[in-house]
Amino acid sequence: MDDAAARVAALRSEDVAIAHLGIEVLEVSAGSVALGMIVAPSMTNGHGIVHGGYLFLLADTALAYCCASLDRLSVTRTADIAFLAPAPLGARVTASASVRALSGRTTICDVRVESEGALIAEFRGHGVVAR
Amino acid sequence: MDDAAARVAALRSEDVAIAHLGIEVLEVSAGSVALGMIVAPSMTNGHGIVHGGYLFLLADTALAYCCASLDRLSVTRTADIAFLAPAPLGARVTASASVRALSGRTTICDVRVESEGALIAEFRGHGVVAR
Amino acid sequence: MDDAAARVAALRSEDVAIAHLGIEVLEVSAGSVALGMIVAPSMTNGHGIVHGGYLFLLADTALAYCCASLDRLSVTRTADIAFLAPAPLGARVTASASVRALSGRTTICDVRVESEGALIAEFRGHGVVAR
Amino acid sequence: MDDAAARVAALRSEDVAIAHLGIEVLEVSAGSVALGMIVAPSMTNGHGIVHGGYLFLLADTALAYCCASLDRLSVTRTADIAFLAPAPLGARVTASASVRALSGRTTICDVRVESEGALIAEFRGHGVVAR
Repeated sequence: MDDAAARVAALRSEDVAIAHLGIEVLEVSAGSVALGMIVAPSMTNGHGIVHGGYLFLLADTALAYCCASLDRLSVTRTADIAFLAPAPLGARVTASASVRALSGRTTICDVRVESEGALIAEFRGHGVVAR
Repeated sequence: MDDAAARVAALRSEDVAIAHLGIEVLEVSAGSVALGMIVAPSMTNGHGIVHGGYLFLLADTALAYCCASLDRLSVTRTADIAFLAPAPLGARVTASASVRALSGRTTICDVRVESEGALIAEFRGHGVVAR
Repeated sequence: MDDAAARVAALRSEDVAIAHLGIEVLEVSAGSVALGMIVAPSMTNGHGIVHGGYLFLLADTALAYCCASLDRLSVTRTADIAFLAPAPLGARVTASASVRALSGRTTICDVRVESEGALIAEFRGHGVVAR
Repeated sequence: MDDAAARVAALRSEDVAIAHLGIEVLEVSAGSVALGMIVAPSMTNGHGIVHGGYLFLLADTALAYCCASLDRLSVTRTADIAFLAPAPLGARVTASASVRALSGRTTICDVRVESEGALIAEFRGHGVVAR
């Protein structure tokens, strides 16, 4: 396991919420991270569709891990998300984060959220190095 | 219970995720909704701080209920959030949504997220009336 | 002229671009500023409609002046805008900024852009105190 | 001149504001457009720095031309921008737009704004096909 993967694994190992949701680390390299999750019953609304908040959470976690992969442990300052298509109960969802820009203590990451081969959300967030 | 409150209660009653997280409806009027939640262990990261995704989820739900209070059942198209302060395990968090603008099928809502009297996040989202 | 108005007038007086566009200060109080502008031919596209960039510029200036009104001279770090309706050549446009939140060196301002009594854009920006 | 370039040239030729600002089309292909502009005195504030609104305008125009390059003539519905560094009077600024996602009538474009080899702003906008 290289350094980027080791840093992400360390972050993942101590995170109660991420374990609770069954979020897995699929790929890590410096400046690029992919996470996966299955839509569980407890994540759905009355129509059997995942709450957008869980897609945001997955993407935001990908941002945090992406910053960590660069040894820039960060918290999210601002983020925006566009929801493009729904994901139903049982769907496998992946979030692929890549660095868009580095500027001082700020890291801008873009995260593509996909399910079953289709794009379902686009996320952009600003991480700021934690002091 | 007036019409706005009845519509929100109906939405709340059928929503598995919201019940699972213990999110409560504190106040409803037409165009204004407040929700409350306690930060549970399963929502925290390795430092005992709530994941931003759960604050987003709470705010996004407040947006959805706020649209419903106006009889404009909506899904979120885009949203952004700024995280201003952390909320620790056990903290009570509230999200207060109000309508900023109506434009065609779009409702722009602002949501203030507070904990223990302090502002911890600001959210703005665009709901679009579900067809 | 009170302190808030004096600070905004000082900022306005040295600003080439704002004078060039004929942007006027309509109202100032601490934490609240309104600006006005007429859509000139040089601001329009091929259909006689103002470029969104000029609405952004007007709103962003209102944010800067709003920060100055609080004696927090700031530059914009991030901003977002939603365009809701067009403004034609010759239309009078106003931008009304108010403070949404203060957090450390950051000021979050909301700006409502109106023309002839109708809402045409909603802007939110984060100013950060210039060092 | 291929179809994408012809569509962009047509849009450019009828646009008063873009000609007025001396904005040039540097590169066009289907789904990718680069524009250039020189910071003129009339674009600067009291410190000889370009107003962020002009960087937004340049980026937003790149988005519009990028949509046109795909034969999806669009207006901007929402956009956000992060300002990362200033551009002084006389600086050459370029905006490079590329398509991030297509979803129904919506085109999400990312625009990188650079000056003298440095990244100065990041823009993301949603164009919606004009009816």
